[in-house]
Amino acid sequence: MPRYRLTIDYCGSRYCGWQVQPNGESVQGELEKAIKLLTGESVRVTGSGRTDAGVHALSQTVHFDLEKERRPERLFGGLNHFLPDDIRVNAVVEAPPNFHARYDCKEKSYIYLFYRAPERALLKNRAHAVSAQISAEKMRAAAQRFIGEKDFSAFMAGGSDVKTTVRTVTEASVEEKDGLIIFKVSANGFLYNMVRIMAAVLEAAGNGKLSPSDVDRLIAARDRTLIKGTAPAGGLYLLSQRY
Amino acid sequence: MPRYRLTIDYCGSRYCGWQVQPNGESVQGELEKAIKLLTGESVRVTGSGRTDAGVHALSQTVHFDLEKERRPERLFGGLNHFLPDDIRVNAVVEAPPNFHARYDCKEKSYIYLFYRAPERALLKNRAHAVSAQISAEKMRAAAQRFIGEKDFSAFMAGGSDVKTTVRTVTEASVEEKDGLIIFKVSANGFLYNMVRIMAAVLEAAGNGKLSPSDVDRLIAARDRTLIKGTAPAGGLYLLSQRY
Repeated sequence: MPRYRLTIDYCGSRYCGWQVQPNGESVQGELEKAIKLLTGESVRVTGSGRTDAGVHALSQTVHFDLEKERRPERLFGGLNHFLPDDIRVNAVVEAPPNFHARYDCKEKSYIYLFYRAPERALLKNRAHAVSAQISAEKMRAAAQRFIGEKDFSAFMAGGSDVKTTVRTVTEASVEEKDGLIIFKVSANGFLYNMVRIMAAVLEAAGNGKLSPSDVDRLIAARDRTLIKGTAPAGGLYLLSQRY
Repeated sequence: MPRYRLTIDYCGSRYCGWQVQPNGESVQGELEKAIKLLTGESVRVTGSGRTDAGVHALSQTVHFDLEKERRPERLFGGLNHFLPDDIRVNAVVEAPPNFHARYDCKEKSYIYLFYRAPERALLKNRAHAVSAQISAEKMRAAAQRFIGEKDFSAFMAGGSDVKTTVRTVTEASVEEKDGLIIFKVSANGFLYNMVRIMAAVLEAAGNGKLSPSDVDRLIAARDRTLIKGTAPAGGLYLLSQRY
């Protein structure tokens, strides 16, 4: 049974997230529909992870199996034909039969986009407006404190069921460029809502409400209730995965 | 009667364009609704020009009169409260009573965004996908031929009624940056669909189908039927106006 590996990008604004849900359209559901329309086969696709409603992907790795072998170029064009145009396939290759988009993923990277107020119409659902006076330098200093192997239980939304809340953050940078403040974070895995909670902490730090050592204390306290808020979904983009 | 000058930005995707139409929502109509809700006054707002359905604005200048004087800061906050979030007011000032957003405009600038295929979901309705092999250098050479005082009747969509089709293009540049090919054009005025027809010509030039001297000939022929197509609305942004 041939296995295929795709990379896709999508605008998450009108989806209930990656995962198929009883109500609402999902990225996974749209992909499965397109595969069915193209090949006649009903398959389950596996993504490198799940994104929430409104979260975007610049590149997400996906795998699935087909009964019948198909040329990757044909899958590429055919899937893009049947997919809605806010989900695009960027690459298709045949993968080894044991390749797994989720379990084999060694590291994931996300970016979270902020910009200085006033609000801009064209950034609606694409980036999060923050105070015009925010300090990117303070955000950068706070972000440094995320780096390392730590218990991030304070950075996990309720209702999660995971074996361990320890994750290793390998990169956490803040760069100001072309009117955007870009928070980039890479880790061997992320807890539910972890990047959006980190983004909320960075906004508070940038506004002078939290110091870098407050960030250390928040992590050490392992108490989600100490951190206020979760940054809006529309600012978050799954950027890449390393296998 | 106090006159106010606004700059606004908007995402044109869900509008029938700038101008109030019998069917469909317009940017002008939404602004007038917001002014009515905020002040109780029914006014007509005047823009620096009209944009088509799906065209965006990074900055558009607008003026209107009110019976009753209001503080610009109150108008700023109040209008943004009542406007849909894909239209944002960026600045409000009180203007001299004879200021006119359209007649006083000395020069307008637009950008048109292209990017190399494959299609990207997040650029849907925001930029136009062109061949991965397109030559930005050839596009730049062709764009140079737009510069100067010329009769642009070949670059005007049908159904237009204008006194003269002569316009002075002061800038026409092509720059490749961050995965986008950006065509920027400034002129003392634009004909109906002029920038989108220019963009279609640049795409043909970039693909080697037209040479820079073909562009000269197209302009000189003053015949719209010689130019194939109009680039999609979603790639076009009104960038700025000079008064």
